[in-house]
Amino acid sequence: MNVKTIEWRDDKVVMIDQRVLPIEEVYVECEDYKQVADAIKTMVIRGAPAIGVAAAMGVAQGALGIDSKDFATFEQKLNHVCEVLLATRPTAVNLRWGVERMKHKLATLKNLSISEIKQELKKEAITIMEEDIAINRQMGDFGQTLLNSGDTVLTHCNAGALATAGWGTALGVIYSAKAAGKTIEVYADETRPFLQGARLTAWELMKNNIHTTLITDNMAASIMRQKKIKAVIVGADRIAANGDVANKIGTYGVAILAKEHDIPFYVAAPLSTIDIRCPTGDQIPIEERSAEEVTNFYRQRVAPDGIHVRNPAFDVTPNSLVTAIITEKGIIKAPYLETIKKLF
Amino acid sequence: MNVKTIEWRDDKVVMIDQRVLPIEEVYVECEDYKQVADAIKTMVIRGAPAIGVAAAMGVAQGALGIDSKDFATFEQKLNHVCEVLLATRPTAVNLRWGVERMKHKLATLKNLSISEIKQELKKEAITIMEEDIAINRQMGDFGQTLLNSGDTVLTHCNAGALATAGWGTALGVIYSAKAAGKTIEVYADETRPFLQGARLTAWELMKNNIHTTLITDNMAASIMRQKKIKAVIVGADRIAANGDVANKIGTYGVAILAKEHDIPFYVAAPLSTIDIRCPTGDQIPIEERSAEEVTNFYRQRVAPDGIHVRNPAFDVTPNSLVTAIITEKGIIKAPYLETIKKLF
Repeated sequence: MNVKTIEWRDDKVVMIDQRVLPIEEVYVECEDYKQVADAIKTMVIRGAPAIGVAAAMGVAQGALGIDSKDFATFEQKLNHVCEVLLATRPTAVNLRWGVERMKHKLATLKNLSISEIKQELKKEAITIMEEDIAINRQMGDFGQTLLNSGDTVLTHCNAGALATAGWGTALGVIYSAKAAGKTIEVYADETRPFLQGARLTAWELMKNNIHTTLITDNMAASIMRQKKIKAVIVGADRIAANGDVANKIGTYGVAILAKEHDIPFYVAAPLSTIDIRCPTGDQIPIEERSAEEVTNFYRQRVAPDGIHVRNPAFDVTPNSLVTAIITEKGIIKAPYLETIKKLF
Repeated sequence: MNVKTIEWRDDKVVMIDQRVLPIEEVYVECEDYKQVADAIKTMVIRGAPAIGVAAAMGVAQGALGIDSKDFATFEQKLNHVCEVLLATRPTAVNLRWGVERMKHKLATLKNLSISEIKQELKKEAITIMEEDIAINRQMGDFGQTLLNSGDTVLTHCNAGALATAGWGTALGVIYSAKAAGKTIEVYADETRPFLQGARLTAWELMKNNIHTTLITDNMAASIMRQKKIKAVIVGADRIAANGDVANKIGTYGVAILAKEHDIPFYVAAPLSTIDIRCPTGDQIPIEERSAEEVTNFYRQRVAPDGIHVRNPAFDVTPNSLVTAIITEKGIIKAPYLETIKKLF
């Protein structure tokens, strides 16, 4: 894997700046939790599992910066850090998951000194990062059994190494298939408005020697009709208890197109993406981002001034369109209400 | 109508440069048929009816530039002009239609002097332009009966005044509804890779005071699911004898999404877009354009060097997904093989 998404280095959180890839390869060094929060909000880092790791590291960094010697005050200040991090992006549940795992860790550390607690929280954040990679590898091993050598897969957005601490969810399945000796080709939707497909998926698949063809989002239907696609694999930002999947805007459309062309539609996501407290997709908050992402690109305006714009960053794919969900504990199918419950 | 797409002025063909709208409002003056051919090829002008008119004007301009006094030589040289114009873009049948109409006109002029012939061909090209606007108005009058005041319509690409000599096909239906006192809102797909929706549809609808919301192509499914869309209306670049519709890439996907959400899918196109010699959509040639349109976003490179790219400019929507075709002779429905035959 030739990509490093996020690292803890000398108590700094170092992230590759995903806003400027692949034109520039720049690393952002966050010196405190506010900078981590800002990096999540402005999408220096993105992808549900990656922002879960970033949030955990942000909590650890926030802990290091608290000068209180008293546990109650320390906890209160750390809760504020958690609030700031949780407020950055509403849709991905991994963000909450990362923060809550750090809070649970803190609850087990009450008997230690504050300086010991800080070291333990730092260790926990690094463990979360390492576990994320291991989980992705397990997911990939299960998922790759769904593919045959010679298959062409379509993916949307970036659910790759860059969306995680490494390896990737949807692209992790491709990498695992390759590691198992299979030849897989990929069609990558460019994924407007942020172009994660054109910029990130194309870049990391090329770095890992996977034959990749870039298309605009609206070409997927036509490519499917030409019988070029054997499977669709995407990631997820939040999966409800009934298997409804919130993922990058456009995923729902791709799922409908897959159904129309009898192509299986797979979602690869770790358990940390499944929100068992969220009954259906209707309860998942959908982030609406700024109009400029649609009307502009690289500060170049393309649409007329004053035009109305919608910019939902995610959509919800109903469980009926999901052929299977690939997790680190195995591949599950409908009825998701039951199969998801069994996973936990 | 506050938009002038193409004009014949002092024996020059004057076109608004659709590559730089809406940022700049620049007019290109073509002094000979080669410049017209180049303008069609590079998409200074685009839209099936508009390039039909441009091609006819190109033939007229080519005629003016031939110095032969002998009919046979004149005809031979004009045939060469026609070949150059026909070779610019393969998908839109209006291009061939415009050229052939000029050739048929020539066949009726054999008894005139060459200088009289030149004037007659020039008149014919201007007549074709004027007829195009009249045809669009008729189409709009028929089409607007399908809409109720308060409806929201989704459109893809630009099938507006800018795609024709004026008024428009799909957007002409909206303008006619407005002229009939109805309030219609529009969702415009930005239409990657050339962004005709963001740049052209948004611009001309705003100029004509239609409430327009710009979305990226991959948001259409989500907007439809929110029950915001009452009808989809698009134009066409070529319609086969069986009602299969070639139109801007992404149209086929939108048609599938419309079916999934029980939204009627209408195609507005003049008879000159129907190719009765083409039995089905499978016989329609699909232009593949340069990779740079996909790897770049409005002149800014976004994808990594060396990535493979597909860039089909059009796709084919099978007749089964087309609720009705709006023409200047009325609205037709399936079975299209019969209803289209009756139109001719």
